[in-house]
Amino acid sequence: MIIVLKPNISKKEEAAVLKEIKRLGYQPHVMRGVARTVIGAIGDESTHQSLEALTAWPQVESVTPIQKRYKLVSREAHPTNSTVKAGGTVIGGKKFVVMAGPCSVESEEQIITTAHAVKKAGATVLRGGAFKPRTSPYEFQGLGEKGLKLLAKARKETGLPIITELLSENHADLVAEYADILQIGTRNAQNFQLLIAAARTGKPVLLKRGLAMKIEEWLLAGEYVLANDNANLMFCERGIRTFETYTRNTLDLGAIPSIKRESHCPIIIDPSQGVGRADLVVAMCKGAAAMGADGLLIEVHPNPAKAWSDAAQQVTLEGFAKLMEELKPFIAAAGREL
Amino acid sequence: MIIVLKPNISKKEEAAVLKEIKRLGYQPHVMRGVARTVIGAIGDESTHQSLEALTAWPQVESVTPIQKRYKLVSREAHPTNSTVKAGGTVIGGKKFVVMAGPCSVESEEQIITTAHAVKKAGATVLRGGAFKPRTSPYEFQGLGEKGLKLLAKARKETGLPIITELLSENHADLVAEYADILQIGTRNAQNFQLLIAAARTGKPVLLKRGLAMKIEEWLLAGEYVLANDNANLMFCERGIRTFETYTRNTLDLGAIPSIKRESHCPIIIDPSQGVGRADLVVAMCKGAAAMGADGLLIEVHPNPAKAWSDAAQQVTLEGFAKLMEELKPFIAAAGREL
Amino acid sequence: MIIVLKPNISKKEEAAVLKEIKRLGYQPHVMRGVARTVIGAIGDESTHQSLEALTAWPQVESVTPIQKRYKLVSREAHPTNSTVKAGGTVIGGKKFVVMAGPCSVESEEQIITTAHAVKKAGATVLRGGAFKPRTSPYEFQGLGEKGLKLLAKARKETGLPIITELLSENHADLVAEYADILQIGTRNAQNFQLLIAAARTGKPVLLKRGLAMKIEEWLLAGEYVLANDNANLMFCERGIRTFETYTRNTLDLGAIPSIKRESHCPIIIDPSQGVGRADLVVAMCKGAAAMGADGLLIEVHPNPAKAWSDAAQQVTLEGFAKLMEELKPFIAAAGREL
Amino acid sequence: MIIVLKPNISKKEEAAVLKEIKRLGYQPHVMRGVARTVIGAIGDESTHQSLEALTAWPQVESVTPIQKRYKLVSREAHPTNSTVKAGGTVIGGKKFVVMAGPCSVESEEQIITTAHAVKKAGATVLRGGAFKPRTSPYEFQGLGEKGLKLLAKARKETGLPIITELLSENHADLVAEYADILQIGTRNAQNFQLLIAAARTGKPVLLKRGLAMKIEEWLLAGEYVLANDNANLMFCERGIRTFETYTRNTLDLGAIPSIKRESHCPIIIDPSQGVGRADLVVAMCKGAAAMGADGLLIEVHPNPAKAWSDAAQQVTLEGFAKLMEELKPFIAAAGREL
Repeated sequence: MIIVLKPNISKKEEAAVLKEIKRLGYQPHVMRGVARTVIGAIGDESTHQSLEALTAWPQVESVTPIQKRYKLVSREAHPTNSTVKAGGTVIGGKKFVVMAGPCSVESEEQIITTAHAVKKAGATVLRGGAFKPRTSPYEFQGLGEKGLKLLAKARKETGLPIITELLSENHADLVAEYADILQIGTRNAQNFQLLIAAARTGKPVLLKRGLAMKIEEWLLAGEYVLANDNANLMFCERGIRTFETYTRNTLDLGAIPSIKRESHCPIIIDPSQGVGRADLVVAMCKGAAAMGADGLLIEVHPNPAKAWSDAAQQVTLEGFAKLMEELKPFIAAAGREL
Repeated sequence: MIIVLKPNISKKEEAAVLKEIKRLGYQPHVMRGVARTVIGAIGDESTHQSLEALTAWPQVESVTPIQKRYKLVSREAHPTNSTVKAGGTVIGGKKFVVMAGPCSVESEEQIITTAHAVKKAGATVLRGGAFKPRTSPYEFQGLGEKGLKLLAKARKETGLPIITELLSENHADLVAEYADILQIGTRNAQNFQLLIAAARTGKPVLLKRGLAMKIEEWLLAGEYVLANDNANLMFCERGIRTFETYTRNTLDLGAIPSIKRESHCPIIIDPSQGVGRADLVVAMCKGAAAMGADGLLIEVHPNPAKAWSDAAQQVTLEGFAKLMEELKPFIAAAGREL
Repeated sequence: MIIVLKPNISKKEEAAVLKEIKRLGYQPHVMRGVARTVIGAIGDESTHQSLEALTAWPQVESVTPIQKRYKLVSREAHPTNSTVKAGGTVIGGKKFVVMAGPCSVESEEQIITTAHAVKKAGATVLRGGAFKPRTSPYEFQGLGEKGLKLLAKARKETGLPIITELLSENHADLVAEYADILQIGTRNAQNFQLLIAAARTGKPVLLKRGLAMKIEEWLLAGEYVLANDNANLMFCERGIRTFETYTRNTLDLGAIPSIKRESHCPIIIDPSQGVGRADLVVAMCKGAAAMGADGLLIEVHPNPAKAWSDAAQQVTLEGFAKLMEELKPFIAAAGREL
Repeated sequence: MIIVLKPNISKKEEAAVLKEIKRLGYQPHVMRGVARTVIGAIGDESTHQSLEALTAWPQVESVTPIQKRYKLVSREAHPTNSTVKAGGTVIGGKKFVVMAGPCSVESEEQIITTAHAVKKAGATVLRGGAFKPRTSPYEFQGLGEKGLKLLAKARKETGLPIITELLSENHADLVAEYADILQIGTRNAQNFQLLIAAARTGKPVLLKRGLAMKIEEWLLAGEYVLANDNANLMFCERGIRTFETYTRNTLDLGAIPSIKRESHCPIIIDPSQGVGRADLVVAMCKGAAAMGADGLLIEVHPNPAKAWSDAAQQVTLEGFAKLMEELKPFIAAAGREL
């Protein structure tokens, strides 16, 4: 840690800081600069107690950690890319993985039709919401277990593994019984109890980025999964919240190289939530493929105009097939295959 | 709802929209403007199905709701201010309520000392974290039930009701057994299952604003509490996330008049989380009192320099007593009393 | 315009609003909804006076314009893509245009070496700052006219047209004398007097997006150029300011399809400013090419480690040549060529 | 400066960094930590060349400056509060200064009526826009010099000094001829050439904060004024841009104690631009007075419902008189007087 002292403090005040640094197991290293005195505190920040409390000392101007706070998710800990298996699909390897399906499971016909169509177009995972977190208590909250059963039926018919959202610790076992991948939504991205519950099911976890989550916080939330003995973690960028209102969110495609640099875990892009309008989804998918994402999570609906939720951002079955065609040259250019 | 059609669409495309509007129980009202055709859809948006799915129709440019989406929390539903009772303390009335105490409960001595000191200085609720949501899994996660017991002991000694954070649905009964007010933290502000669990305990709920939560979304999250038969809701502004890094967050004091305008529920300000540095807390408290907040939630610690969490933002016992003195003229100017 | 009245207003208050709407040349159209009365005001918003002042009327809840505020830059006004010519380079057509060069012109050797290298690698425009807007008055402010002369020399040697920043109305003629494209920087993106001065030189203008500029505001700033009789406008996304600190800015690649949808003008991406770190630039370039950008603006320096400004984000000459190679398959996949 | 090296670099790579540090006139100070090697570079960052270029070196992880980048505006340079004089009004002293008037000067009657009314209510500076920066080229751009003449007439009649916006370098002499204070608007807050031109007139400068400007950048923009021999600088917070859409901007009242901590210059709050709705202005004014602002800049119009610009945020003459009455107890509580 680097501790910067305020200008013009007394010898006694400085000595007190040095003493506290030693007390917490670090070795202080004093540098007297032109305008400020700076202390380097040498020791392992991951095993010693934090020196951050020094910020509260009146003679201290700032305290800056040097070590990164995440470990198990970091590329330093695991230099090669890790992969995650769900059914027969491997995520993070040579194959570019497309997960597609409706925002909400609405009926047997809807989910089965969609499953067949997205499989035919090249998707290898089926998505569908059974439990839905909704901004208003008066909006459709999902079919619940009935939805899970319909997803399982669609899997049986098509062979596609399924991904669905987990939004309550109390549902962890139930959802894990049906799902191949548990999705943690953006509003629960720092619901650490839910992350622990998800990790403990042993199922792969796809962790969406919170609306206002910094890359470092996202990695640390992922660390909760790995630290609870579940190595099957994927990150999913789905748009952050900014001042811009033209799109629903601002899809931060820069998260792809950033996560790839810091972590060994796969990164998936959700363009549907990211922009919130189907007409911009195709361009976002191309960018994601080109920039090295490991896959996409796309909302597809047989009839978006009658969808029970998020109608504006779901693409049609035909639109999805066309999108997959248009995507191919970019996947190939990125050295991946479908 | 107001539906704007794209320019140059055919009669047939327009007729299809009108038909759908009628099918969903609304009465369409066509206005032909110079550049666009606009349709007003007349009907009760709160009982009819949403017309938002129309956004996905190719001939539609935009769909704008007219009615507000929140009801029970709204001032339209309840024009006078509502009050919340916790122990002997009434929040939202003539008295300006100060809730104070450490970020985390650390020991019996720490919490009892703090409780006596903040009571003496004028606080009427004791705060203290027993279960702590931490960005990293390697940080101190709170004393858990032991912390709750220490809070209860402090209440017994001082008579102060206690507020503490609830961060897991599975803890709802346990925490409600000890606490007088349940706090929902910023990272769980849209963890709707937790909001429902908190509401169902019947205890007063203090709902912190999420880091990237719009006023409307915050009101709707509060609606989850009232819609689950618990009228004892308080909102708590604690800083939003912006580009500014000088302070930890940007405390949006404008939320006070905004919430007062839209809702009847009390609004509390947490300046400690808001700015993250004790030296700026006093000014924020003065502003909050002046602008009509119903109270404050302040982090106070006997020795911030040795605190186990959030050292930089906790004020000392002496600092707190001084703050309360400095605050008095502003509370009086606002027509309130301690 | 759509005017929503507050609930429970009197007939007289409503009549006053209707009268004012008529006075300003619009025809009011009343719709009585369940919770609110809504008035559609029919008339050409671009020729009549704005009804926005109605927002200040106590009986009015909101006023929403229906027409778009930009005209000349809009795709509605000019459905096909427009192109901009600078020297022998055409921007916005089949060719994907790469503009490359140092952040600041530092010396003859530096700029000539760079010009030859970027040309060889495939760039068709040379960039270089002569007048530099710097956050601090104590930082290097550019070589000024001497820098312009060096750029002109580099153009003479290589044939590459040059782009350089204009940051003062008083320099407009001087900079236009040397430059083939005038760049308006992010901090001046709403410096309307500068936009007008730039437009009046008749030279092509590249308008960077402001740090906190909405798509609509950016289009309107561009409208200042076209409205001053200069049709040679390009937009340039260079990162917006968000809460994220991992990268210097958040490069909003979603601006590509958004601008393409709303406007006929070319869109260029500046990944160097966007992420502020050379190691992430390549991925951003691939994304931009894939998503339909018309070109890139890249900072290249013979020795970034000794650059006089923005060292961290400039790529080396070798790095640039490698980047151009890696980019080719993505440019081809997008149906463009170098 | 603190330079952190990447893990596992060679002795030779380290030696190269140390050599460069020495070459630039600093003395390196090596600390070998558990996970990283850290180098403190001792020397005066304000007179030596920056080490920031080291960020581009492959063996370097990060470079952090220790010294603050602003000098003349800093409280370190000038520990007591400075004051600014405009006509008979002193800003930054015991008196709390209210500057009030219309968004735009529209007519003689409008500005004279307003001037008398705001003076009577307690304002001591008259505001009014003559040159207006407008988002769209089709909006009213101000009366120009005619507006300045009307302001001068209002000053003659009431004795109130006037503040008006300067938005072009070419207008600096003209505007300075009429105005007592030059206002630099939010869109020009980092238009450094304009800041220099304003400074050189010798007139007091009120510098509004940019929409996405960090406190540090704002102080550095102010530094441009003082570094050009003009000590009469005031900062003016007027709302930053965030994700919130309930208010026009997010008024960051935390800027008051932040600026007071870092700088000796007065700080003024503009609640009208800050929230963009007259009904919230009063609460913001109370907060600003309570938190230690030196004054307010308030938009007042005889008939906001017919204003030519920003109708929604202007208060009426009666509203302003009432506001001033309501404000008095808060000004007194803050130890100031009108």
